[in-house]
Amino acid sequence: MRSFIEHRDHILADLSPLPARRVPVAESLGLVLAEDVVARVDLPGFDNSAMDGYAVRSADLVGASADSPVVLPVDGDIAAGDTTRHSLAAGRVMRIMTGAPMPDGADAIVPVEASDGSAVTVSLMLAPEAGRHIRPRGEDVRLGTVVLRAGQRIGPGHLALAAAANVAEVSVHPRPRVAVYSTGNELQTVGSELAFGQIVDSNGAMLAALVRAADAELVTIGHLDDDPSAVRALLEPIPGSPDLLLTAGGVSMGAYDTVKEVLSEGGVDFVKVAMRPGMPQGSGRIGPARTPIITLPGNPVSSLVSFQVFVLPALRRLAGLDPLADGAFEGVAAVDWPSIPGRVDFTRVLVGPDGLRPSGGQGSHQLGALADATAVAVVPATDDHVVAGQVLTCLPLLGTLGA
Amino acid sequence: MRSFIEHRDHILADLSPLPARRVPVAESLGLVLAEDVVARVDLPGFDNSAMDGYAVRSADLVGASADSPVVLPVDGDIAAGDTTRHSLAAGRVMRIMTGAPMPDGADAIVPVEASDGSAVTVSLMLAPEAGRHIRPRGEDVRLGTVVLRAGQRIGPGHLALAAAANVAEVSVHPRPRVAVYSTGNELQTVGSELAFGQIVDSNGAMLAALVRAADAELVTIGHLDDDPSAVRALLEPIPGSPDLLLTAGGVSMGAYDTVKEVLSEGGVDFVKVAMRPGMPQGSGRIGPARTPIITLPGNPVSSLVSFQVFVLPALRRLAGLDPLADGAFEGVAAVDWPSIPGRVDFTRVLVGPDGLRPSGGQGSHQLGALADATAVAVVPATDDHVVAGQVLTCLPLLGTLGA
Repeated sequence: MRSFIEHRDHILADLSPLPARRVPVAESLGLVLAEDVVARVDLPGFDNSAMDGYAVRSADLVGASADSPVVLPVDGDIAAGDTTRHSLAAGRVMRIMTGAPMPDGADAIVPVEASDGSAVTVSLMLAPEAGRHIRPRGEDVRLGTVVLRAGQRIGPGHLALAAAANVAEVSVHPRPRVAVYSTGNELQTVGSELAFGQIVDSNGAMLAALVRAADAELVTIGHLDDDPSAVRALLEPIPGSPDLLLTAGGVSMGAYDTVKEVLSEGGVDFVKVAMRPGMPQGSGRIGPARTPIITLPGNPVSSLVSFQVFVLPALRRLAGLDPLADGAFEGVAAVDWPSIPGRVDFTRVLVGPDGLRPSGGQGSHQLGALADATAVAVVPATDDHVVAGQVLTCLPLLGTLGA
Repeated sequence: MRSFIEHRDHILADLSPLPARRVPVAESLGLVLAEDVVARVDLPGFDNSAMDGYAVRSADLVGASADSPVVLPVDGDIAAGDTTRHSLAAGRVMRIMTGAPMPDGADAIVPVEASDGSAVTVSLMLAPEAGRHIRPRGEDVRLGTVVLRAGQRIGPGHLALAAAANVAEVSVHPRPRVAVYSTGNELQTVGSELAFGQIVDSNGAMLAALVRAADAELVTIGHLDDDPSAVRALLEPIPGSPDLLLTAGGVSMGAYDTVKEVLSEGGVDFVKVAMRPGMPQGSGRIGPARTPIITLPGNPVSSLVSFQVFVLPALRRLAGLDPLADGAFEGVAAVDWPSIPGRVDFTRVLVGPDGLRPSGGQGSHQLGALADATAVAVVPATDDHVVAGQVLTCLPLLGTLGA
């Protein structure tokens, strides 16, 4: 049997970041830069006022104070957005707003709070040093310098910086586009009357939610019966031309494991992975577009854990991110719990102030215990149980944070 | 001056979780439950097989082993999704797949791995105890029990659990809908040729990105000139009927701070908050719908910090989340840095292995320094500088994680 790390590396070895594309900067949130972003302007683009107040020649205000204000005539206003190049004569001031361009000749700002606020003849109550409250052109960023680097993921502040640098489009790896298919004759739509032997298809909606929580784009969601002719649809062009195809179910040892049966011929490698839950796994490329595919086991908990362990790194690789920088952290077991040696156990745990506790029944079909879990703890294959105090690597469950 | 905590509490005191709404479970990712979710079925809904293998009567296999297999006739197959109630006669077995319903009379499963796999007359190489590899009806969840509680935020596993429990719709607080307006005559569209005195409108795109990063919905984005008649549009019905209105700019001490001028009459409270950046703030309700509004300062860094400190808690409150459980963490300063006493300083910092370091120029207009920052450190108003080793509360910058 493969280790989960071997299987993950096998999947990642076949994937590369999606080809770069230019997108409007306003649509770049969360994407990874494929090229550096270079400032197209100085920031600020011109010397401007950092305060609402008066643009002055500092030499005119030597000795000014609250007790001994200097009174000067006001030669009009400069608002932010004023595109005129004003000039300030000696012995005069101009009223100026935050962000407005400095008039030629002025070398300091007196804030409005240190004045009587007049628009005609103003009393100024301090003597600024030259340069005071001026934001010089290019102080923050110089035209032609790199403001964001290839490989950075664009957050809101990065997006604002690129926009401010007048960069209208950025070159990014696009968001991976994913198709999801659940399989199995027993699966019915949620809200149906269930006959004996039938269950609700929870995997489809869960995988769709995981795709969104991983900041990928769901392009297709479907269901396939356990019937070779139905499953063969996966070998045809897939609606939405996904970058990654996910299936759930039909990959185990059963006589009706049609996904395995059909896709073994079609380019998918089916393997056993030494993990619990999630032993039966498959990956490869299929169809005319050689679309990467990961076939997940059908038990919902197996499917969820397999998504965290294999699909999330794959999506991160496609998006241009470090596939393994997925927020793993170390936790300390608060209690003992049993584990099966020979396989890595992914125990769903509650992360509490006193450490990690299993969140309830750990069967691969037991969704109930997931409700309180916020992470999966990775129990090494060598352990036959976890002891309280043991340090374990934990993977935060996608989409469960921030409640 | 108000403290930032007083101002935040003032904003929060006026807001409640948005009225609950029923949504299809598949659309509930990230939303907060307004009502408990009660299972409409048992999980599992019927006794079923946990393995691909053979349903047997354990009494028929006493003493079976690899050396001494028991050979029994196979009375057909039971696939997952088979809706017939089968019955197993003594001295016979049925081939059964994972998830398929147990036949009456059978009390254990022999996995296919412990057989010769025959569909006609099978050699079985172990003697299972009664109940082995059977998932009993209701073992995971019982019909009528609460599987998810009001107040929980729905993650992918929760969504799967609700679906599996055959709950088609859940009652949730909807995602807050937000309108964003940047203001200022100096602001031009990204990619424009900038005249002297003009800058790119980076706030609009940044606030839109922050709204998305906060998992809220952007319904309108616009720009208003510094002109009372333009700003009065905010007192009319807002396109998209937002739950929260955000403006940036026009709230300071200037002669053209039109947002402040117009909205002071219209129900907005403008105050100074003892923080840096972000001193000029406003909040209230305006227009015929009494829409909650937060007016942010126009300097981009002030706007971003104000979003983190005031808007994010407001959005969390509207969404039904704990407004203050925003991931704040404690960090240790790696170096000294200056601070202005009398105001809380929100220093943009890099969180490195050795602690916190300011990420560059800290002017409220300096976006360049934001590129590397991943958090803001909250420096108390009593401090005139930070000393290396000092513990500071840090707010993770929205949308910068996971790179």
